[in-house]
Amino acid sequence: MRDAFEIDTTDAAGRIGELEVPRAGVTVETPAFLPVVNPHVQTISPARLEDEFGAEILITNGYILHKSEDLRETVVEEGLHDFLDFSGAIVTDSGSFQLAEYGEIDTTTPEILGFQYEIGADVGTPIDIPTPPDAAYDRARGDLEATRKRLVEAEAADTGEMLVNAPVQGSTYLDLRERAARGADGATLDVFPIGAVVPLLNAYRFADMVEVIAATKRGLGADCPVHLFGAGHPMVFALAVALGCDLFDSAAYALYARDDRYLTVRGTERLADLEHLPCECPICVTHDPTGLREMAETDRQLALAEHNLYVSFGELRRIKGAIASGDLLELVEARARGHPAMLEGYRALLDHSKELERSDPASKGAFFHLSAESARRPEVRRHHDRLSRLSPDGRVLLTEGGVNRAFDESWRVVPPFGPFPRALSETYPLNAEVPGPGRIDGEAYERAAVGVARLVEANPSVEFTLAHREWPQAALATIPERVSVVSLAANEPATGSERDTDDEPDPHGAGTAARGEPTDEWRPRDDGEP
Amino acid sequence: MRDAFEIDTTDAAGRIGELEVPRAGVTVETPAFLPVVNPHVQTISPARLEDEFGAEILITNGYILHKSEDLRETVVEEGLHDFLDFSGAIVTDSGSFQLAEYGEIDTTTPEILGFQYEIGADVGTPIDIPTPPDAAYDRARGDLEATRKRLVEAEAADTGEMLVNAPVQGSTYLDLRERAARGADGATLDVFPIGAVVPLLNAYRFADMVEVIAATKRGLGADCPVHLFGAGHPMVFALAVALGCDLFDSAAYALYARDDRYLTVRGTERLADLEHLPCECPICVTHDPTGLREMAETDRQLALAEHNLYVSFGELRRIKGAIASGDLLELVEARARGHPAMLEGYRALLDHSKELERSDPASKGAFFHLSAESARRPEVRRHHDRLSRLSPDGRVLLTEGGVNRAFDESWRVVPPFGPFPRALSETYPLNAEVPGPGRIDGEAYERAAVGVARLVEANPSVEFTLAHREWPQAALATIPERVSVVSLAANEPATGSERDTDDEPDPHGAGTAARGEPTDEWRPRDDGEP
Repeated sequence: MRDAFEIDTTDAAGRIGELEVPRAGVTVETPAFLPVVNPHVQTISPARLEDEFGAEILITNGYILHKSEDLRETVVEEGLHDFLDFSGAIVTDSGSFQLAEYGEIDTTTPEILGFQYEIGADVGTPIDIPTPPDAAYDRARGDLEATRKRLVEAEAADTGEMLVNAPVQGSTYLDLRERAARGADGATLDVFPIGAVVPLLNAYRFADMVEVIAATKRGLGADCPVHLFGAGHPMVFALAVALGCDLFDSAAYALYARDDRYLTVRGTERLADLEHLPCECPICVTHDPTGLREMAETDRQLALAEHNLYVSFGELRRIKGAIASGDLLELVEARARGHPAMLEGYRALLDHSKELERSDPASKGAFFHLSAESARRPEVRRHHDRLSRLSPDGRVLLTEGGVNRAFDESWRVVPPFGPFPRALSETYPLNAEVPGPGRIDGEAYERAAVGVARLVEANPSVEFTLAHREWPQAALATIPERVSVVSLAANEPATGSERDTDDEPDPHGAGTAARGEPTDEWRPRDDGEP
Repeated sequence: MRDAFEIDTTDAAGRIGELEVPRAGVTVETPAFLPVVNPHVQTISPARLEDEFGAEILITNGYILHKSEDLRETVVEEGLHDFLDFSGAIVTDSGSFQLAEYGEIDTTTPEILGFQYEIGADVGTPIDIPTPPDAAYDRARGDLEATRKRLVEAEAADTGEMLVNAPVQGSTYLDLRERAARGADGATLDVFPIGAVVPLLNAYRFADMVEVIAATKRGLGADCPVHLFGAGHPMVFALAVALGCDLFDSAAYALYARDDRYLTVRGTERLADLEHLPCECPICVTHDPTGLREMAETDRQLALAEHNLYVSFGELRRIKGAIASGDLLELVEARARGHPAMLEGYRALLDHSKELERSDPASKGAFFHLSAESARRPEVRRHHDRLSRLSPDGRVLLTEGGVNRAFDESWRVVPPFGPFPRALSETYPLNAEVPGPGRIDGEAYERAAVGVARLVEANPSVEFTLAHREWPQAALATIPERVSVVSLAANEPATGSERDTDDEPDPHGAGTAARGEPTDEWRPRDDGEP
């Protein structure tokens, strides 16, 4: 049933996809947010979630329904869709959360999966064992073996058209996560939740969350729809989508509301602390903080839950738009500035730029250099790999200035990419928007220097000259010894000094230009173009 | 009448203030956004701006009213407030925009100011001369002299309780801007618009905009309310507020809507390009892009104008909330990731951290280190200034690890701040949230090293040892020669190597600890606390 998931558009490891849910007869566009609906307490009715918030899919708890004297018979008779009054896709959980919270539950995978099937769930879940972060390795491995057996039981169960989750556990052990993912991928199951990440999220351990997701993704095929179980804070959606997560669920919108907490894409606020409502949603443009605080408790909780949902769904639309226009990483850049722990998460994401590069499209709208971190994006890595396959001829000038006819070729140099033939100037990502000289970061120069080194090392018989504008020493230190380095002053003709010594004979024949006697040809052009 | 403006709360150079507008009998909370109302074409009626969007102040064009055969008599008879049906404050412009657009206008400052007074404007404007960016210096200076004379005429006019704008021009010449501002501040006028910045905004020259605002602010007293004339794109609000701008106006919400363009805090989108509406406003949660595109033209323009207004007012609420909670610069950090030119603007802002520091409060909620740029924030500068006034005694250890009793004092070291006595650990900004080792940027280490140098230079008779965890060479290079430098491995006891040579006698008496024989006392603590 893996063909239930089709990927339409990718950006970094993020994707817009279509999850076909045959039992519901619907196709869910991913990334998608699944509000958690508590069968006992519906803060916002599923019908409203569908009609007003655009929810195409939700999640509720099969175990609670199973254990409830009140509800069990009704839901079996009516079926889950009528019971909840929701026509989209419905995922049911199995009691694993209760197992993790309370230590034991009173059912088995065959039983609870059968029940989920019986009530008409569209995506069911076996009873995996959530192992918390930093558990002992042996416990994590043991739990994983138990989860593996449950997946085998799930495979054997008669679940008809119902899709079945294959949760991936493994605590914070990346080898276990990857192995578990590989095992889940090998099963004949359909959707791949990453479990037990909520404690990482609650502790703002976003870098650890990134590593857990990245390890899981290494074990899963690119065609696997991935559900980040329990992740419902909009501040992490962009980061998690960029890693390749497709589904998010959470009761946070309702639970936080009950605690008078207010979600934003930058974090969580307490209503008590707000002097202004930092949001454009229908709640926030018709209320002020004092008005909200003075509302009756249930009205206030409803209003906050609605705000929290508007923000969550809005962020997912923003993310989908970003994937469609190829600027998901630009959005992640902005979200990384919500909290130092989010910056850690973004920096951890970039540690995986090689993996991101595999699904990153070769061409997008425009590369925006937005921080020192931008220099580590997958596009820069890809360009450097390409540089080692390019073969210029003769005496080659790599320059931040214009064409110099004293050389056989005059390539452009643009931080953070490094050198490239002028003909590629209008191609992605070399048509990047980059801060001007004096406003760009040292990291960009250092990466550009790595690009120069890659090209030079791949072309041992070519003579290279680098003409740069005020690169920092840390960048110049990366340039191979055999490259002549010429400094172009920002707004005047080059003064042309050799990097090594002035006593050596000019090995490159660049003549006066490279030797300090300015010529017009060294004069910088406004646009750096020939 | 300068006491019409009262500053309540500051953050960087931004402030929440109250502009008393006596003629309207209202107090406007700043920063405020003034929708431009075209007397001929009211995309959204002023009554709706007031009731639905919360506009406390708007701006319309006195010159257009003056020249209009149709409207002139009506507005004189009814008065501007009844004519527009708006009970908040109304600012009128003078025709300066038309002068800049068309080269000439048919009125004088005494006449048009008298007309503005006659129709009941709450804030009137003389006819200043907008000089575009990069005009010839002589022209800019000449225009400025003409503007100065108009301000003198405005001072002489009988304008009763009407506040009067004193626009500051000067093209992109910072000396002219500062001089013009000083002159305007000296006049008996009330509100200080910064003129002719729209071409800079339209060209995404945000760093130049920052320099123009900063130069103007140098010439104006802190008590002057500052209006960034024509700036109405929400992407720049946070940056401009952080520099000390209080009022923003623009017709962009309506003009962009007419062109099917959609504003966000990250830039401008074309409706034609949108696959998802990246926003939570009442328009965007009840429409989708296809639906908007298929609307009749006037309906669509109205919907887009409403969206644009929701975003503009929402961003100002977000900014006011950020000032109130002391994290305006954190918001600017995020906005800087909307476009490389915004990053240039943010980096330009930080060039003025000394000026920002003057109004930046000594204590706020928490300092978030969110990028290499954070290391250049005014709080870091202030801490470094303070370091040069601190006087530790005896042999002093500056350490990223725990207390070492072999020293007389063991100060903490936290990038990007540098060293401080442990007793200050819980005070702002030293209680900062900072990415962990391995996730922090080189810039933070380099600034911390500057802090070490400031302390060491101020205390020539104190013996210092620095125990750091894997600082980069660029940071260590800043540490004065006489400091002993010890390296603490991230997760093990220090290996303790002297920075200079191992042959020198240990000058600091740190004994085995500083010499490579680990002791428990060098063992890093989890929280770095004693």
